[in-house]
Amino acid sequence: MMASIEAGGTKFVCAVGTGPHDLRAVTSFPTTTPDETLAQAIAFVREQEELAGQSVSALGVACFGPVDLRTDSPTFGHITSTPKPGWGGTDVVGTFRQALGVPVGFDTDVNGAALAESRWGAGQGLDPVVYVTVGTGIGAGALVNRQLLHGLLHPEVGHVLVRRHPEDTFEGVCPYHGDCLEGLAAGPALQARWQRRPADLGPLRDQAVAMESWYLAQLATMLMYLLSPERIVFGGGVTKLPGLLPALRKDAVSIVNGYIDAPAATTDIDSYIVPPGLGDQAGILGGLALAQRAVSR
Amino acid sequence: MMASIEAGGTKFVCAVGTGPHDLRAVTSFPTTTPDETLAQAIAFVREQEELAGQSVSALGVACFGPVDLRTDSPTFGHITSTPKPGWGGTDVVGTFRQALGVPVGFDTDVNGAALAESRWGAGQGLDPVVYVTVGTGIGAGALVNRQLLHGLLHPEVGHVLVRRHPEDTFEGVCPYHGDCLEGLAAGPALQARWQRRPADLGPLRDQAVAMESWYLAQLATMLMYLLSPERIVFGGGVTKLPGLLPALRKDAVSIVNGYIDAPAATTDIDSYIVPPGLGDQAGILGGLALAQRAVSR
Repeated sequence: MMASIEAGGTKFVCAVGTGPHDLRAVTSFPTTTPDETLAQAIAFVREQEELAGQSVSALGVACFGPVDLRTDSPTFGHITSTPKPGWGGTDVVGTFRQALGVPVGFDTDVNGAALAESRWGAGQGLDPVVYVTVGTGIGAGALVNRQLLHGLLHPEVGHVLVRRHPEDTFEGVCPYHGDCLEGLAAGPALQARWQRRPADLGPLRDQAVAMESWYLAQLATMLMYLLSPERIVFGGGVTKLPGLLPALRKDAVSIVNGYIDAPAATTDIDSYIVPPGLGDQAGILGGLALAQRAVSR
Repeated sequence: MMASIEAGGTKFVCAVGTGPHDLRAVTSFPTTTPDETLAQAIAFVREQEELAGQSVSALGVACFGPVDLRTDSPTFGHITSTPKPGWGGTDVVGTFRQALGVPVGFDTDVNGAALAESRWGAGQGLDPVVYVTVGTGIGAGALVNRQLLHGLLHPEVGHVLVRRHPEDTFEGVCPYHGDCLEGLAAGPALQARWQRRPADLGPLRDQAVAMESWYLAQLATMLMYLLSPERIVFGGGVTKLPGLLPALRKDAVSIVNGYIDAPAATTDIDSYIVPPGLGDQAGILGGLALAQRAVSR
């Protein structure tokens, strides 16, 4: 039995289990202060150990970021310069390792989801696999050459510049860039542009879907051109907007315009740009996959 | 001793040697028909073997594309749908393997250059490393998690959509996309927009550099956001335009605007976006690095 934590900026989701068909005791609580929230996660694991009459052999944490993933860094496993008050500099891995005394797998939430999707979901047997999430922010994780993509930091795809939709006069909400992708197409941008929640768009929905798919299709095609993934998984609340994924696929095909000579970029686009095979569990199963990887190393 | 071929759409460069400090008999000839050109390359290798009194132990080919790199594909090592007349479907690897009877390393020209730069040039000890070339086209290769980046195809960064420079009214020259990156910023686009060769820009140079750096900086920041490389190498004829690399670095820092919390994206940008450490030999040394890799496998 292993433990998994999907550590989000809004809530923490915790579970124990051995795989996608054995995920138990899934519990969530709001993210408050680091001390309180990490203590609550530790208490959850201890409680599950007691209930099961056995210890967990590892913990995996799929964490909101930015995080330090360089294993040779003195601040490995820390949250770095997050705007979230109080969380900058939090030693996530150290705290859990000390409290639980087991190997701790650690990566970004989206890299965790990419790993889970590649192991059990929509990306099985494929490489590279990219997992994109579009919600309060826009992020992506990727498995490339059988390992998660790190480097200077980790992918931060939300902030790329995109070409504006010709009918879009909205100035964008990103505090760093104004009208970067996240500033134009994440949940808060939709809310601010249309002045209503996605569920309440009513007759504006067609126009909203057209703009949103134009922006997300640019991200999809950038990923195709720069990373050449074998599949792109689009998850997160905003991607559930009815009609969005089909429109996104159509726009991606139209942007590429036949240049990428592969069925995936033309006739097979429906099986190339896909929703998560693991549904809303990609994140928490990401933690579990990271726990498994921590043990196998 | 190994043999290296930099197989370009305009010319083939051939050499034998053992590494960057022992590269001999560098020879080039125009790319004509596949039969004639491949035969000429084979004749070169045989001649060198005779002169040296020893056989080559491997050949590496850094090839223009698109090429099929899937080792399990029946057309592995072939050039696929190139617009270059006569070359579509050419079995490059098979032809050389049959003629020379040695292991043949094979990848794109830019992946070869990325491998050579990571082994001997500006990317030593770093991962991911991206090599971008800006010449008659725009392309990139990348080493990610110690392997070259393949996937659905291979990176084709030249065709991403970019945001237009506010003063740029040029319609673009890409036959697929019009004003994609390559359509606006590769050599033929510069030639068509300014109606003169880069060396003859005269008083237009400042404006040309400002536009070019704006477009290439968008590519650099996309790479930073999507691939998170530890270094980006910019090579190719167009990048030699005086003042371009410094302007590109400045634009990249300004586009990221502090969001990527790493010295590389701010104070250390001069050592992050760099010219090839191997100069104009990145391509031919790419072939040699591919040959070495073919032997070590």
